[in-house]
Amino acid sequence: MRTRDECVAADQADVLAPLKAQFSLPPGVLYLDGNSLGAKPRAADARAQAVVGEQWGQGLIRSWNSAGWFDLPARLGAKLAPLLGVPGQEVVVTDSTSLNLFKVLAAALRLQGSRRVIVSERDNFPTDLYMIEGMMDFLDRGYELRLIDEQLSLADALDDRVAAVVLSHVNYRSGAMYDMAAVSAQAHAHGALIIWDLAHAAGAVPLALAADGADFAVGCTYKYLNGGPGSPAFLWVAPRHQNAFWQPLSGWWSHKRPFAMSDRYEPAEGIRRYLCGTQPITSLALVECGLDIAAQADMAEVRRKSLALGDLFIELVRTRCAAHPLTLITPQAHVRRGSHVSFRHPEGYAVMQALIARGVIGDYREPEVLRFGLTPLYLGYADVWDAVEILREVLDTRAWDQPAFRERAAVT
Amino acid sequence: MRTRDECVAADQADVLAPLKAQFSLPPGVLYLDGNSLGAKPRAADARAQAVVGEQWGQGLIRSWNSAGWFDLPARLGAKLAPLLGVPGQEVVVTDSTSLNLFKVLAAALRLQGSRRVIVSERDNFPTDLYMIEGMMDFLDRGYELRLIDEQLSLADALDDRVAAVVLSHVNYRSGAMYDMAAVSAQAHAHGALIIWDLAHAAGAVPLALAADGADFAVGCTYKYLNGGPGSPAFLWVAPRHQNAFWQPLSGWWSHKRPFAMSDRYEPAEGIRRYLCGTQPITSLALVECGLDIAAQADMAEVRRKSLALGDLFIELVRTRCAAHPLTLITPQAHVRRGSHVSFRHPEGYAVMQALIARGVIGDYREPEVLRFGLTPLYLGYADVWDAVEILREVLDTRAWDQPAFRERAAVT
Repeated sequence: MRTRDECVAADQADVLAPLKAQFSLPPGVLYLDGNSLGAKPRAADARAQAVVGEQWGQGLIRSWNSAGWFDLPARLGAKLAPLLGVPGQEVVVTDSTSLNLFKVLAAALRLQGSRRVIVSERDNFPTDLYMIEGMMDFLDRGYELRLIDEQLSLADALDDRVAAVVLSHVNYRSGAMYDMAAVSAQAHAHGALIIWDLAHAAGAVPLALAADGADFAVGCTYKYLNGGPGSPAFLWVAPRHQNAFWQPLSGWWSHKRPFAMSDRYEPAEGIRRYLCGTQPITSLALVECGLDIAAQADMAEVRRKSLALGDLFIELVRTRCAAHPLTLITPQAHVRRGSHVSFRHPEGYAVMQALIARGVIGDYREPEVLRFGLTPLYLGYADVWDAVEILREVLDTRAWDQPAFRERAAVT
Repeated sequence: MRTRDECVAADQADVLAPLKAQFSLPPGVLYLDGNSLGAKPRAADARAQAVVGEQWGQGLIRSWNSAGWFDLPARLGAKLAPLLGVPGQEVVVTDSTSLNLFKVLAAALRLQGSRRVIVSERDNFPTDLYMIEGMMDFLDRGYELRLIDEQLSLADALDDRVAAVVLSHVNYRSGAMYDMAAVSAQAHAHGALIIWDLAHAAGAVPLALAADGADFAVGCTYKYLNGGPGSPAFLWVAPRHQNAFWQPLSGWWSHKRPFAMSDRYEPAEGIRRYLCGTQPITSLALVECGLDIAAQADMAEVRRKSLALGDLFIELVRTRCAAHPLTLITPQAHVRRGSHVSFRHPEGYAVMQALIARGVIGDYREPEVLRFGLTPLYLGYADVWDAVEILREVLDTRAWDQPAFRERAAVT
């Protein structure tokens, strides 16, 4: 696509284009940040009204049964499961990604007995590293966190002391994607278990957790799954591990008979064992609106379009912003790329603020990284064209070179 | 109050009565279950619409700053703090009560070094016991859970091996309330730390955590604080302990510089150290509607009315339902009672279903317990009169004696 007209034509031929009408996006905005907070499904307003106005306001306590509140984690898990490539009864939507990582890491360490090394990646999303550190510090049992980076490859990090490998399938900053099957097999070859964080993958790339040999997976629903701000996360455990141990955040929702009010803990069978306490129902219920849209899309088509949008974005930046110091940090190879593309720019923070001021919403990540999420459900080729044109204008005119755009907000 | 007219007159003289107009209650319902799920503030619909429609739909990712999403745990904590008798900067609203208990118990155990006993109560709300069990099992370091009950008093359970005492200030089933100052002092006399679960106390009874010598407190916002179904819980840590350790659920929201994306964890100073991951913003934001109503009420007046409603309920049941096998299990002494009253009845489950079918909503707890929450912000004396009249009618006519009322729902 060399012209805007060609992009418009591609949008007209796009089988996913009609889904955009199911989202509400503000006028004048090109939203390239669905990898941080997904756009709002139009159905979410009515759903919020139903949960707050009717289920809470009118149903009151009765809604735990009549509105199915108690079953929401499992019911939403079953809707999400096809996107992860696993059976419906193996997934729950609950708590946060950080907490779910704690649960599955605890389970993995217990399964692994005396192995004392956890492998992760220096460039992993920090909360994953912090949760690992928190657990190691709490257990105080000689665990070691080994971080792969430019100096240490995964192959070199793996040995028979490694209990678990914790990796993000798609890197939050660069958009680089691992080969799940190959890396899972590599971990297993050393007797290590593999935990995948799917925050930047679920809903954006086709997943086959079972076929690819994953042991555990967690991830969030507020990015490509469009579940709403901070909506509860998900958790999957391979059936072979589900009942093998008892995760330590063993609140009453994970009890075999939660309403028997027994004074002794007895874990539920299956994935319900990974629940903990009472869930934030309003936020949780809204997750369904996003899942209902995702269910209408063919994931192979989503992936094809995501890569096409990414190719277009990269090519347009290369050709139309060539005069500016933008460095692509996202792999160009399709098998190595998720659904966002990132560039470094020495004035990255200010450039992003100038873009946002012009309605092109991406985000900024330390250090110097401009990050653009490409969300096939509501973004088109002409949108990408227009966004790059505005980027070009911001750079050509040095529109970013203002004190107001350099001033850091609390949340970047 | 011997007649309904006297109850009506008491309602007319009630200084809290005008607050009822700020809640939305369904017609034909007498709601005596605000101790399980508080009623909906009228403001909650507009707030939900604002968060979903405007902040998410229009503001999108920008709302983390512009709508103050990131600061919500601390901002709501500051609004809640006066109800707990502590300064505003010492409280956060976040995660669930179960998770918050895990955080503070981990902190307490760490502070206590080699002490290996945790004291709680057999009749505590089960999730507290399950979380303690989960932590002991995970640490696998010889911890012992010692449960006080009819055979073992707190005095007998305490010795110099006790690290922490975990008690509910108001018992979820019986409504019995501990003397916080006396019990805290009793624990401290043995060198133990005291953790209070305030789920059935916050917003219902005046609290003075600092003056009463508490070390840690957790509790939920969806009961007497009217925060909405499953709304996030709260957590308080005495300033003397706040920076003394690092709690294990150390997600990025608890990091000193969460957006620096450092690969090493460094805990924030103060109560922010007790946060973990991204919060469910829609559910969290709704908590403010309930807190805003609570802020308008004098807690001494709330307590006075709560006890008067309880006295009335107990006296009316005693006099008007005398022919039936109802056994009061709630202490009658004011200093020993929270804000709900409970009776055992051999057919408790069916009786409660029959009451609910007639619009008197209380709830049932194993074994055989009818539980009635008395919420001064939206319940009046005539409501109590009418509820007991319907209870009397259900019992006199054996209306509960139907198969449909005996059939157990998923959530009881």
